[in-house]
Amino acid sequence: METTDLSPHISSRFNDDLEAVRASLLRMGGLVEAQLKKCLATLSEADSVLAAEVVRDDEQVNRMEVEIDEACLRILATRAPAAGDLRLIVAIIKAITDLERVGDEARKIAHISLRLATLERPADRYREVRHLGRLVEDMVHEALDAFARMDAEAALRVPQLDRQVDEEYESIQRQCVTFMMEDPRQVRRMLDITWAARALERVGDHAKNIAEYVIYMVHGQDVRHTRPEEVELRLRGRGGARES
Amino acid sequence: METTDLSPHISSRFNDDLEAVRASLLRMGGLVEAQLKKCLATLSEADSVLAAEVVRDDEQVNRMEVEIDEACLRILATRAPAAGDLRLIVAIIKAITDLERVGDEARKIAHISLRLATLERPADRYREVRHLGRLVEDMVHEALDAFARMDAEAALRVPQLDRQVDEEYESIQRQCVTFMMEDPRQVRRMLDITWAARALERVGDHAKNIAEYVIYMVHGQDVRHTRPEEVELRLRGRGGARES
Repeated sequence: METTDLSPHISSRFNDDLEAVRASLLRMGGLVEAQLKKCLATLSEADSVLAAEVVRDDEQVNRMEVEIDEACLRILATRAPAAGDLRLIVAIIKAITDLERVGDEARKIAHISLRLATLERPADRYREVRHLGRLVEDMVHEALDAFARMDAEAALRVPQLDRQVDEEYESIQRQCVTFMMEDPRQVRRMLDITWAARALERVGDHAKNIAEYVIYMVHGQDVRHTRPEEVELRLRGRGGARES
Repeated sequence: METTDLSPHISSRFNDDLEAVRASLLRMGGLVEAQLKKCLATLSEADSVLAAEVVRDDEQVNRMEVEIDEACLRILATRAPAAGDLRLIVAIIKAITDLERVGDEARKIAHISLRLATLERPADRYREVRHLGRLVEDMVHEALDAFARMDAEAALRVPQLDRQVDEEYESIQRQCVTFMMEDPRQVRRMLDITWAARALERVGDHAKNIAEYVIYMVHGQDVRHTRPEEVELRLRGRGGARES
């Protein structure tokens, strides 16, 4: 969009700096993905060591957020990037906030798992939550993958997955209400399952946000608050041309 | 921090641009505050007209987010701001995301209120939630006020309020669990109250985030993931000097 290039500072060092923050974001993403996998594992089998790891990882995720943020600010201040480079930096600044919040949700789930572990474990009660977890893991993975490859087509698939997540989440909710009404002794457990499902649903939202930044980064179009079909139409209308 | 000024473009038009996005953020904040007030009012008395207004406001809030974001990008691309100006722009980019999410939570609460309105209304059952709502309203107001006046001292008070919010939220949670266990017919209603309280608690988190951006903007220090006392100590250690 902005084609005026006001910065005479483009240099290989500039590209190195950009590449470095991009790599940091992907490293942070990898850590968050691992966190998510671990917290879902604690749901299948109570593992306080693994849960403690999720909490420890979260501290590192938080530190990475601050570091990447500072690196982006430094680039903005000293290199005055324009056009696509500027969009990349702003997309990174936004994406790390979402990644950090995914880390927070993973930590919440790990806490819930430990609490659930003190209760009698139902044969397969958490199966639905684990299924939801896998869906959400896929979303995060696809969003980060799209970011890594600056692939707007791949990013477009993420909001579509989000619908499936929402349906799955609603169904878990309904089930939990039924169980609670049938047996009040199940209230605490069911509430915890509800919270875990809610946390996963929010992880899906963050993955969707990250995918939207990828589209914005590649096409320079803000697609937030727009229905997936409309976004697709709008982008295809441009002949699917991809800038990079 | 960064004192190198690479931009020869500082002009009164630049200041006008900065002032314009700052004013837009405050206008967006005002709209979100009104939304919050309305959604809390729908909780005291079911008012489907008011609830519909909250939803409509949310669409405007979403549009404002995209517009302000674009204005910030334009400033970054064409004016290459440095130091404090750059921090202001980045703080605005981050703060509008939080404001937009407050709008989302307000919308959720309005939906819940309408659902609760179809049930028999208890004499004072929602009193605690309304109290929590007032606390959270204060937090949002103080955070925006601190932003308007670039007042880091005022911003420091917001995370302290968040603790009160968390306590209030936990207490509502515990109450709801007790009611559900005592009377399974209350499960749906109590779950809705729990969700409303949860939404309010998240609004408090967003207010805290905005307050942290104010501190960052004024002092150039990132205070996320830092305990309030530590932040205060760290800033006071600098003799409370305030840059603007």
